[in-house]
Amino acid sequence: MDGGGDQSGQAQKQKGAISNIVIIIAMQSEALPLVDRFHLTEDPHSPFPQGVPWVRYHGSYKDLNINLIWPGKDPALGVDSVGTISSALVTYAAIQALHPDLIINAGTAGGFKAKGASVGDIFIISDCAFHDRRIPIPVFDLYGVGLRKAFETPNLVKELNLQVAKLSTGDSLDMTQQDESSIISNDATVKDMEGAAVAYVAELLKVPAIFVKAVTDIVDGDKPTAEEFLQNLAAVTAALDVAVEKVISFINGKSLSEL
Amino acid sequence: MDGGGDQSGQAQKQKGAISNIVIIIAMQSEALPLVDRFHLTEDPHSPFPQGVPWVRYHGSYKDLNINLIWPGKDPALGVDSVGTISSALVTYAAIQALHPDLIINAGTAGGFKAKGASVGDIFIISDCAFHDRRIPIPVFDLYGVGLRKAFETPNLVKELNLQVAKLSTGDSLDMTQQDESSIISNDATVKDMEGAAVAYVAELLKVPAIFVKAVTDIVDGDKPTAEEFLQNLAAVTAALDVAVEKVISFINGKSLSEL
Repeated sequence: MDGGGDQSGQAQKQKGAISNIVIIIAMQSEALPLVDRFHLTEDPHSPFPQGVPWVRYHGSYKDLNINLIWPGKDPALGVDSVGTISSALVTYAAIQALHPDLIINAGTAGGFKAKGASVGDIFIISDCAFHDRRIPIPVFDLYGVGLRKAFETPNLVKELNLQVAKLSTGDSLDMTQQDESSIISNDATVKDMEGAAVAYVAELLKVPAIFVKAVTDIVDGDKPTAEEFLQNLAAVTAALDVAVEKVISFINGKSLSEL
Repeated sequence: MDGGGDQSGQAQKQKGAISNIVIIIAMQSEALPLVDRFHLTEDPHSPFPQGVPWVRYHGSYKDLNINLIWPGKDPALGVDSVGTISSALVTYAAIQALHPDLIINAGTAGGFKAKGASVGDIFIISDCAFHDRRIPIPVFDLYGVGLRKAFETPNLVKELNLQVAKLSTGDSLDMTQQDESSIISNDATVKDMEGAAVAYVAELLKVPAIFVKAVTDIVDGDKPTAEEFLQNLAAVTAALDVAVEKVISFINGKSLSEL
């Protein structure tokens, strides 16, 4: 059992270089620039069940096997399947089908200028939590908030000179007073609609997950969120795209503990 | 290919009697009375991946194969894994693993006295929607609301003399002003934390789903929701339990179109 054929595989495993990555991206406009950049192609044999709109793009980049999973367009309405339910489902299904070493959730987010965020900023997330799951019963309250740490990447952050911040996730693009209180209590600099759901599933299935979030709009600013979001989406997506390539290039050839 | 051995199976299939049911129940205190009532046993070989707390109880009842799926206790916090993300994930995983003919989501709910609900009432749901997914961009707004019809069961409703109502789902036990507006706009009589998520996944995977909801607390009443909910949970769960047995007994031996 210690013989020849297995040794290189074992050495590889002991060295533990990351080889298989799943990138979860909620919106097509965020996903397609990365599909182009990494020359990924759509999987003609979907690893997902019939009926779901989820799309896998894949390909090789340096020594990495890259899977970019986009939850696709809602079958009835034709808009991107954004939000926590879809992102939880594709994270689950992608882990089951593809057994990634690492998950990267990349996407746009709202930023808080009171916490130093500006449009176009890119953040690596240290902690994820929910801001719209209020269950005022002891311990259920903590379950609702669902605070969890992202996989820590101190070397990546230092080498690429990235900002680190906390993320708060909810299923609405706008923000109520109660959302705002929870976001403040989560100490969040950025707000998205998927991160904490991806973190939840990744933790359940014990797959490390990191989060790269680009600010499209300032939540505590003067402009209406939806308008500012749509206005900045293309430009900020381009910045996100550059950041994700740098992150992936840094990951290439390294083990999890080297990140 | 038309020979002997296949005919009884084909006749069975043409008649289309429902044979395999998945019941999704979020809380242990709601699930265990049904486990007892149907003499279900916990599956020693979980059909779910390692690490997830999801539990399958199963057994036979009359001519039906019954699977009761409870999302289990949160591994870190030890409370029931309530809410839309867990219920979407177990619905997905249960459909993939168990291929049910029909899904029944049963559970407790808040009721609105303005719409005629009282504590202990049992409702069959006609429509599910979300009240905490506000995305004020055209078409995304409809995606957020996620209105979908439950599988229609006119004969079941008539025979068992059950009330029919609309359900609104959100991840909070409490209700903000914005939630209330959305619930009114969803025309909902009952409010829960799972239904619309189960409906979403069931529709994606084309499995008919019905919903049996029992009112534990009056949302537009005088008592604080959490307190009233906990106070009535045991008694209302017993009523739910009786209703679910009646529903399952009615389903036994019938095809989907006979419900």
